[in-house]
Order: sequence, then C-alpha cells, then structure tokens
Amino acid sequence: MRLALNAAAGAAGQTGINPMVGCVVAKDGRVVGIGAHLKRGEGHAEVHALNMAGDNARGATAYVTLEPCSHHGRTPPCCERLIREGVARVVVATTDPNPVVAGRGIERLREAGIAVDVGLLGEESRKLNEAFNKYIVTGLPFVTIKTAVTLDGKIATRTGHSKWITGPDAREAVHTLRHRNNAIMVGADTVLADDPELTTRLSVPGLNPVRIVVDSTLRIPVTARVLNAEAPTWVLTAARASAERVEALRGAGAEVIVCGDGPRVDLAAAVAELGKREIASVLVEGGGGLNGALMEAGLVDKLMLFYAPKIAGADAPSAFGFASPESMGDALRIENVEIERFGDDWCVTGYPARR
Amino acid sequence: MRLALNAAAGAAGQTGINPMVGCVVAKDGRVVGIGAHLKRGEGHAEVHALNMAGDNARGATAYVTLEPCSHHGRTPPCCERLIREGVARVVVATTDPNPVVAGRGIERLREAGIAVDVGLLGEESRKLNEAFNKYIVTGLPFVTIKTAVTLDGKIATRTGHSKWITGPDAREAVHTLRHRNNAIMVGADTVLADDPELTTRLSVPGLNPVRIVVDSTLRIPVTARVLNAEAPTWVLTAARASAERVEALRGAGAEVIVCGDGPRVDLAAAVAELGKREIASVLVEGGGGLNGALMEAGLVDKLMLFYAPKIAGADAPSAFGFASPESMGDALRIENVEIERFGDDWCVTGYPARR
Repeated sequence: MRLALNAAAGAAGQTGINPMVGCVVAKDGRVVGIGAHLKRGEGHAEVHALNMAGDNARGATAYVTLEPCSHHGRTPPCCERLIREGVARVVVATTDPNPVVAGRGIERLREAGIAVDVGLLGEESRKLNEAFNKYIVTGLPFVTIKTAVTLDGKIATRTGHSKWITGPDAREAVHTLRHRNNAIMVGADTVLADDPELTTRLSVPGLNPVRIVVDSTLRIPVTARVLNAEAPTWVLTAARASAERVEALRGAGAEVIVCGDGPRVDLAAAVAELGKREIASVLVEGGGGLNGALMEAGLVDKLMLFYAPKIAGADAPSAFGFASPESMGDALRIENVEIERFGDDWCVTGYPARR
Repeated sequence: MRLALNAAAGAAGQTGINPMVGCVVAKDGRVVGIGAHLKRGEGHAEVHALNMAGDNARGATAYVTLEPCSHHGRTPPCCERLIREGVARVVVATTDPNPVVAGRGIERLREAGIAVDVGLLGEESRKLNEAFNKYIVTGLPFVTIKTAVTLDGKIATRTGHSKWITGPDAREAVHTLRHRNNAIMVGADTVLADDPELTTRLSVPGLNPVRIVVDSTLRIPVTARVLNAEAPTWVLTAARASAERVEALRGAGAEVIVCGDGPRVDLAAAVAELGKREIASVLVEGGGGLNGALMEAGLVDKLMLFYAPKIAGADAPSAFGFASPESMGDALRIENVEIERFGDDWCVTGYPARR
C-alpha cells in the first residue's frame, strides 16, 4: 500500500479534478503490477496495474489507495475489471467520498466473491486527496493559503519589498505547490507591487495552474505579466467594475468574471464559481489583504506558511490583513500543525479550526 | 562525557556567574565518581567526583566538560587535586575561555605527567555555557529574548490582551528559562499591561531571577506585583526621571538604577551595568518596544520565539517594535535555527547574525 500511495502521489497536480490513486498487484510474495491514475479521462490506477500484471492478476491481491469505482464515468468501472481478471483479494486504503461510489465499489467486489479489506494507511490516502475529498462532496475548491513570512509574520518590508524572503529550497517547494494546484490566486495589490508571472518554474517541467487575480476595481494594467500567454488568466471583479476596463483586460487575454453584486468581489461567490469551472484546488499567494479577507470569510482550508529566519520590523505589512479580536481566546486557531524544514527556512502547515 | 554533560546541565540556573561543569571518573570500565558544580563558591565538579571515587581515582580517567581550573578562586585549583589523587588521564570537552585559565589548566596537568585529550563533545559543552562564555570574556551578560507569538508574529490582540498565547507546555518551558537566567527583564509597558509577578513558577521549586524593569519615566505604580518581596527588583531608568518617583519606587522595595544621561534608558549602558552587578544572563520577556530596541542596538545574543498556532490579525502589536528596512535583504537575520515542539506550540531558537 505504501508503494501504491507513492505511485499515486507521483501524479499530484496532473489529475485535474480527479483524485490521485495508486494500485499495486501482488502475487506469491512478488509485486506483479504497479499503476497510478495519471490524467483525467485516461486509465485508472487499477487498469494500469492489471495491464502490467497480465495473467499474474488471477488469484492475486490488489492494493488500491482509493475504493475502486463502480460507475461508468469517462472510463469503465474498475470493479468489473478486477472481477474479470480473477483477483482474489482487494485491500483498499479508504472509501471513495464521491457520492456516486461511496461504498458501492466495495459492495460490488464482495458480491463477486472477492475478499475486501478497508483501512490500511487510510489516513494517508485521505490526506493525499484532501482537495478531491472536499471538491467531490461540496463542489467547492480546496483553498490553500501559501505565504512566505519573516519570524515576525511580515510579508515584505515597509516599502513593500519582498524579493526574497525565503531561500531557494522553499521557493522550489512553492513552485511544486503551483504544479499541484488547479489554480493560483493573488490580489490586485500583489500584481501591482510585484508584477509576478505566476507560472510554475521548477528544475523539471511542471504544469501551470490557471492564474486568478482578485481585482474589485480592475486596477491591474493590461501589461501585467500575469496576463501573458503562458497560462489562462481569470480576473475576478465586482459588479461595479468599469466596462471599459473589462474590455481592455479581455483584449489583453484575460477572462473577466463578475462575482456578486457588491462593490467588492464576493469571495464566497468567487470560490463557488471556481468550483463550477472545475477548479478543485486553489493556491492563494497573497498578499495580506486577500489572505485576511479569505480567512475572515472562513473560506480557507489549509495554511502553508514558509518562515525565513529574519525580522522585518513592526511597520512592515502583516501576512493576514484582518482586524484583531479583543481577546487572545478569539484569535483564529490552526490545527494539526506540521513543520518541515527547507534549507534555512521552514514551512508550518495547518488547518483553520472550524468555528 | 555525555554523562558529565548531563550532570553539568542539571545545575543550570544555580551556578550564578560560574559555568556549569560536570565530571565523571572512570576506572577499569566502571564509573567510580560523578560530580557537578552546583553552586558558586562551593565545590567544583572534579572535587565532587573525586570525593565519590575515593581511592579509585588513582590511575583513573576523569572526563570533565570544561578545562579544570588552575587558579585559586573561591576554591583551590582543581588541577592540583587531580594531580594529587593520581588520575592517569583527563579528557576535557573544551578549554575554559576564562582569561585566568585559558589553557593553563591543561598545561599544568600535562606538566604533571597526566595525559590530556581535548575536544570530546566540545561543541555541546560550549553551547551549554554560552552565557558564561560571553560573560567571562566581555563582562557583559548574555541576553536572550523570549517571546510568545502568534503565527503572524503578534504578542497580543489589538486591545493588548495576551493571556495566554501559548499552552501549558510552552509556559512551563518559559518558567524553566526563568530559573536558568540570573535576571529577567521587561519594559514598563508590559508591567502596566499585564502586571506580571515575573517569578519562577514550576511544578517543582525553582530559583527566582532578579526582576528588571526598563522604565525611562518611572511609570510603573508602587503597587505593581513585580515589586513584591518574592525576588529583588531593579528598575532601570533615565537621568531625567522624577526624584519623587525614584523615592516612591525605592520605598516600595525596588533598587532604582540610572542608565546613561539621555531622556531614555541607554540600553547598552544598562547591559554593562548589569554585568558589573554580576548578572551573567538576562531573559528578556518583552514587550515589543523593548525587544525592538534591544535588537536595533545589537544587544541580543539569542532569540527564543514560542509560536502558538493562532492568527491575531494585522492591527495587533508586533513582537519586534523597530522600523522596517527598505529592502528585505536588510532584514535582521537569525542563524543556527532550531525548532522544538511544546504541545500544540513550538519554539524557534536562533542567534542574531552579527553585522
């Protein structure tokens, strides 16, 4: 199952709104097939692994990181294939939260006389697909805020200078995150301050996410690098945005999407709209205003804070631009914290507590 | 040597301006004596260990975490005792930076025909005595800033509420730090906001450090809990402080010390004065103004930041109240970072880079 999870994780970022799934087929103490779901609309993990196993599949055990599908989607159901190949036993890490599966796959296998065990490394499999697990049930994307901060929680100096807070190892990790998310989101202030390209730049080729700019009053210039042809760019704006600016940005290649009726982008409506457009995961790269507004609105699923061992000073901008509560007991809480080092820097990962 | 270091560390906080030292005497594959320096003016580690070893010391090997002293201080030189007991070999973790020793102890042992090896776990021994190592050479105390902060680097909410940022495990660690430092320092704002007692409150009895309040204009009230009889309290103030307030605070039990000629406490002069008064280590517990001023003045040797997984918001007070530089490259850098978890919280320890 560990090998199956590793195979699944290797496809992170390339399965679109589909989950990452890995499968290992073992027989008589040997691995006879390894597979992973690599791309939406193409073969599932079980199919690849069974193809590799060939005749060895008969009487074998299949380890699958997610319950095999029982329905006809873009590809035929994997359950039927497992049955047809004569697999004797299937070990499943976790059930599929997809309402059209949700236990029916396991049921189908058992009906066909296959022994099924569920739960091996289940927690790890669920964590691997935390974005899919939310999206498939709610239709909303999984929102991760990533920000580089100093020890004192600042995202720039007082002049707005921020290149670079963290070192090369942390920045490579961030580009891997871009590859793994369907979309990357920033506020207009970040575009105006840093003019980022928001593409995936890794030591190996990576996929570019859809670039999303939250710009209530369409302040970003048509010459912004985020509008270049490297990847699609969606500009989220408010109902009152100037029609002239909308046309100008459309002319520059952006898709302009109005979110809500108010003077500012309705962030909850924006997130829902992204889900409708098959964005299952969004990486928010700031700045402080957007981070704070998303946190205040309860729209954030995960935080990844890359700390650099530096102190920027009290008048530098904070990572989370929202109003402080009166009591420390009312501060926003983060749960299930993990800390990982990247060179001189480290990343604190956690999940906002639901209130 | 590991056992000797552990014995030395056990006396952390109780040796005053003296170093922590441990000694283990071993003979024929057995430990025959263990000692540690427990209190200034009382027996050194070697003496305790040799007393325990008795006749077994003859021909034995002594492991000492710091070069044995060669001079008559408050106690006779340990070198002479090691020679007299007939120890065959001495293994020393690190030389004594004290200018009156500084290699003379090792020299004296070798003159007497004892084999001496230097360097085993030397880095750990030096780290254990990082405060002593600075103090004995410069006469200045080793200054550690400890602060509890949120993920966004805040030390309170916008209303100044800060009880509690971190959980019980981190707070217990802080009280251990108080026990281990000769003095604890806060700014007047912290006294006015939190009215702390600044004593060591552990699950076992601990030593109270001298309590130091930096108060340029003597704003703290005579009823402040920091002035109670639990420990000595020194109030550092400026030349222009009102004579009436000085008398009032003296009447309340404080020692009032004028630092420099300016309108504000001269922090460099203050630190030098503390050194003269045999304070070898100072734990600074904030708030942001004092932290920032000490950092800007280059007077800080070590930082211990206890992070809680909370977000306080942009308008809450920052941990380091100094002006941000223009460029991120000019932010204050911290080196040799270590991260240790305390329950839900974690401590980031590091040393400001010398500029």
